[in-house]
Amino acid sequence: MEKLKKYVSVRDEDQFYHQGAVELLVFNFLLILTILTIWLFKNHRFRFLHETGGAMLYGLVMGLIIRYATKAPDVESGTVYECEKLKSGPPTLLINITNQVYEYQYKREISHHNVNGHQGNAMLQKMTFDPSIFFNILLPPIIFHAGYSLKKRHFFRNLGSILTYAFLGTAISCIVIGLIMYGFVKAMVHIGQLKGWEFHFTDCLFFGSLMSATDPVTVLAIFHELHVDTDLYTLLFGESVLNDAVAIVLTYSISIYSPKENPNAFDAAAFFQSVGNFLGIFAGSFAMGSSYAVVTALISFMHLTKFTKLCEFPMLETGLFFLLSWSAFLSAEAAGLTGIVAVLFCGVTQAHYTYNNLSPDSKMRTKQLFEFMNFLAENVIFCYMGLALFTFQNHLFSPLFIFGAFVAVFVARACNIYPLSFLLNLGRKQKIPRTFQHMMMFSGLRGAIAFALAIRDTESQPKQMMFTTALLIVFFTVWVFGGGTTPMLTWLQIRVGIDPDEDLKTEAASQSASNLDKNTTKAESAWLFRIWYGFDHKYLKPILTHTGPPLTTTLPAWCNPVAKLLTSPSAYGDQPKDDDTDCIIDNDELTENYESSAHIPVPAQDRTGSTQATGKEDIHEGDLGLGGYKLQLEHTADQPQMNSLA
Amino acid sequence: MEKLKKYVSVRDEDQFYHQGAVELLVFNFLLILTILTIWLFKNHRFRFLHETGGAMLYGLVMGLIIRYATKAPDVESGTVYECEKLKSGPPTLLINITNQVYEYQYKREISHHNVNGHQGNAMLQKMTFDPSIFFNILLPPIIFHAGYSLKKRHFFRNLGSILTYAFLGTAISCIVIGLIMYGFVKAMVHIGQLKGWEFHFTDCLFFGSLMSATDPVTVLAIFHELHVDTDLYTLLFGESVLNDAVAIVLTYSISIYSPKENPNAFDAAAFFQSVGNFLGIFAGSFAMGSSYAVVTALISFMHLTKFTKLCEFPMLETGLFFLLSWSAFLSAEAAGLTGIVAVLFCGVTQAHYTYNNLSPDSKMRTKQLFEFMNFLAENVIFCYMGLALFTFQNHLFSPLFIFGAFVAVFVARACNIYPLSFLLNLGRKQKIPRTFQHMMMFSGLRGAIAFALAIRDTESQPKQMMFTTALLIVFFTVWVFGGGTTPMLTWLQIRVGIDPDEDLKTEAASQSASNLDKNTTKAESAWLFRIWYGFDHKYLKPILTHTGPPLTTTLPAWCNPVAKLLTSPSAYGDQPKDDDTDCIIDNDELTENYESSAHIPVPAQDRTGSTQATGKEDIHEGDLGLGGYKLQLEHTADQPQMNSLA
Repeated sequence: MEKLKKYVSVRDEDQFYHQGAVELLVFNFLLILTILTIWLFKNHRFRFLHETGGAMLYGLVMGLIIRYATKAPDVESGTVYECEKLKSGPPTLLINITNQVYEYQYKREISHHNVNGHQGNAMLQKMTFDPSIFFNILLPPIIFHAGYSLKKRHFFRNLGSILTYAFLGTAISCIVIGLIMYGFVKAMVHIGQLKGWEFHFTDCLFFGSLMSATDPVTVLAIFHELHVDTDLYTLLFGESVLNDAVAIVLTYSISIYSPKENPNAFDAAAFFQSVGNFLGIFAGSFAMGSSYAVVTALISFMHLTKFTKLCEFPMLETGLFFLLSWSAFLSAEAAGLTGIVAVLFCGVTQAHYTYNNLSPDSKMRTKQLFEFMNFLAENVIFCYMGLALFTFQNHLFSPLFIFGAFVAVFVARACNIYPLSFLLNLGRKQKIPRTFQHMMMFSGLRGAIAFALAIRDTESQPKQMMFTTALLIVFFTVWVFGGGTTPMLTWLQIRVGIDPDEDLKTEAASQSASNLDKNTTKAESAWLFRIWYGFDHKYLKPILTHTGPPLTTTLPAWCNPVAKLLTSPSAYGDQPKDDDTDCIIDNDELTENYESSAHIPVPAQDRTGSTQATGKEDIHEGDLGLGGYKLQLEHTADQPQMNSLA
Repeated sequence: MEKLKKYVSVRDEDQFYHQGAVELLVFNFLLILTILTIWLFKNHRFRFLHETGGAMLYGLVMGLIIRYATKAPDVESGTVYECEKLKSGPPTLLINITNQVYEYQYKREISHHNVNGHQGNAMLQKMTFDPSIFFNILLPPIIFHAGYSLKKRHFFRNLGSILTYAFLGTAISCIVIGLIMYGFVKAMVHIGQLKGWEFHFTDCLFFGSLMSATDPVTVLAIFHELHVDTDLYTLLFGESVLNDAVAIVLTYSISIYSPKENPNAFDAAAFFQSVGNFLGIFAGSFAMGSSYAVVTALISFMHLTKFTKLCEFPMLETGLFFLLSWSAFLSAEAAGLTGIVAVLFCGVTQAHYTYNNLSPDSKMRTKQLFEFMNFLAENVIFCYMGLALFTFQNHLFSPLFIFGAFVAVFVARACNIYPLSFLLNLGRKQKIPRTFQHMMMFSGLRGAIAFALAIRDTESQPKQMMFTTALLIVFFTVWVFGGGTTPMLTWLQIRVGIDPDEDLKTEAASQSASNLDKNTTKAESAWLFRIWYGFDHKYLKPILTHTGPPLTTTLPAWCNPVAKLLTSPSAYGDQPKDDDTDCIIDNDELTENYESSAHIPVPAQDRTGSTQATGKEDIHEGDLGLGGYKLQLEHTADQPQMNSLA
């Protein structure tokens, strides 16, 4: 290395090219360390510090080194220059310094109080990267992977509860944190800690919404490893995935809530506009994400007579899949919606439709690719969070605010889980036991999303205080609660080592044994999506995938010409191939639900139709393979007559 | 979409977050178009425009749209502001504009003549991304993939010729282009086109070195598809891979060649310093790349008693493999070496050692991951080249220079291929036929590397002229020569549709038939690496991988304790598993070489030893599997005695 040193960047210009290499190398080094640590931990079955906690710890140490071991701050910077001629900040500034023109690029506006915080340590500045990299590059693969690997079967079984926790729970959490923080802020103003600051109730709500994004990635990883009860796993997973989306849109809606006159007074118009924004953005992002996935499904399904199918080129297929999914995110962002929500629902839809059309090779490729990207992105984010504690230059530690935030976060989590669980248990036949509620309470870790939302805006002093506080809460919850998961599971005596498929079979068996007694528990949220499911199975799946019955059997007779056009020839010739086992079991389950819920008053015609069209067919499709098709054809003969009666 | 528009970035701050999304979306869109085009072309077996040419075309059209359809240039920019207090350009500039502090980040130094070129079109500026992204993110996967997928068997068979073309050929090409361009520059000065410019011979050589980097990716893709003669494929592939590395280091060495006094006079000291730089950087980068690969091999090979092997966690293994390979690049860059060279040899070494240690799952994962990254990066680069023609803001078109460059590039290619082929044919038993030479001449496309080297520095006027010229040459060669490959193959009557393995078997058969006559052709470059091969097979492979004989059999008797320590227990128990078929056939070949080259005067002891230790064992290893091991044990019994005789 001594010898090589002499080749180091002889000219200025060369130094420029090596720019970025050192910073990337630091992250690479941290990730390599993390991987080696994970390997070590896996060998020793060590679960008190999870990989994310480890990554954060390494980031912390590296941040410490960078902060105190790199060169002293540059004297030059920190000085503010005057320029009378300039009226506003142009995106690119050309400046003449000692007869040489330099180009400067606009970075951001700085409040006067932050000027001194600029220590001018170039290394520190480089290590604190642009939040847009976070949002455009690192978060999408994580969220997409969550949607793509969603266990639909268990998810839909608990859909009602998950939606309740995600929407109502997050709103409760946001309001509770906002209220408590407002109390603390009032107290701080009272003792004179926030002199000259503007700190409104909306700021407190903003903090509440960003702190409401839970990220139990550590807990879920341990659950997955220990095979914890599937219902508990699904409740937590579903809640955390949707909750992120809700919290992001909520934060955005609150940040654009701007009452005209008194910022502390309640402005009904502005409030309803915010609610409208929330619904509009959520629905828009959902539509954007799903439509990209539908386009992908259509392309991968496309079967023109002269064309080889796309699935014969797994590389192209994977590439297209990857690019279209990412485009869902980027389009949503570009259109002013939230990309995270779009990419989440894109992932869910891709898994539901496109996945069935992919070649076996692409199925594995996409799974592995997103798994890998998720792994890298997650660890980069946690490393970065560790780094940020020492490299971020405008921290604002306020003990009272931090204390208040800790109190608020836990109270809010309790106000979310316990009352909602109580309400849900009134409706659920299969109650959420007390131990599960405690575990869910315990699993309210804060992670990447909360951090990302907080780092987006660190310009004003209140926002800096929020960022510092959010970072500390992330550290605390990841290390303490993440590390405490295994002891907590033992203490609460929650059963582990469950094979989810085995679990389902047992339940299915017990169901058929005591049919009337237990089956209704399964139908818990069936009414929520029964109509959707029938529509999906009869129309969407045949149009978008190779699975499901041919359209000719599901559409009324007079639609036959259209149906023939839309159905791929392979749908007639081949056996219905549904590689998504989740779905098959889902179908079986649903069939049972249909049979047991036959006493619910639905229009007779409708009921018979749907039982025949989806219920029985599904059983054959799943269990008998080729045999199923024969039966479907028999149905086709009956169906049009029944429809014409209506 | 109309409805959603109203949510678009209500506040400034929000606009900031969506930054980058639009630009990324443009690239995504171009890539999606490219993939769909490739699919279309594959269906119609259309080979007149390759995917890279298509990507470039789409980029061109998009560049045209961005240039002329986006908003008019901002009046504000283009103005140079004065700041007397500043003495030099600080990395971060804080500036007070109308009582608000803005932070600006240093981008670059601008020559006075470029100031007007700054039209201030924000979109154009955003689309021309930082060259460091090119070098740190896009190029490494392409180069690594080239090294990782190198067909070692054919590569080593033609090693001598490939090295000649890569080193000597590139040097010739560089000097010839430099001389011709110097003539044209003199002519331009004479007619008064370059008034007030500094344009030295070293600048011409600089242009020569960057234009010497050939990138026949299009040609090779078509060769691969048509199964063109393997020797021709290997010659071209090997040349282009190594040639890139040579051209990059050459460009760097020339750029730091700075004679003290007269820049046009020959300065012996500076010249030898440049040559020294070239050798030092090349050797340093080679060492850096290989050592990272060796570390990866060691980690993946590591087998501590209490530890599960890393290969039981394919995800971690793939992650580590990916990160360490990328680190090889970044470390070399950070140390002032050339990362491209490092990552190339890292790829070769990873394929040679680490690949054998990976779990089957990781083998496929790494292959697919790098294949995918290569595909994406390549198409991004070609799209970007298309974009750059219209979005780059400081083009300098000089018809005479461009004409000169076209002449120079073709003359230089001819001076490279024909004389060197003639010389090589003097030594080669299996001549490089005239048609192959014509094809190699024709395949001298310029691509990503030439572009990347040219875009690194576009500050001075000569450099801008070079960049514009290089871009046009890339366009011309990719479209015309890339598209003309298939007709050219037909015209030259080069045989296609050859199965490389079949090819080898036929040759092997003909070899054993006429042993004395033909075998020496195979040994063409065997002497180059025979010693290396023996060393590698006997010592490195056993230490670094699970393949090869146990160290106890290859090391002398007195080394046995050390050998036992270093050999993994599995090496004794398992059968030698060498999944790298390339290698196995390589071994067979080499064995034949050994047998046939027995008349070459080598020390008798050495010869017998190596024939027994590597030659015969290899045959068994490759052909008999388990049986091979038994024979190795017999050798083990003999070996120490033979060694002790020496």
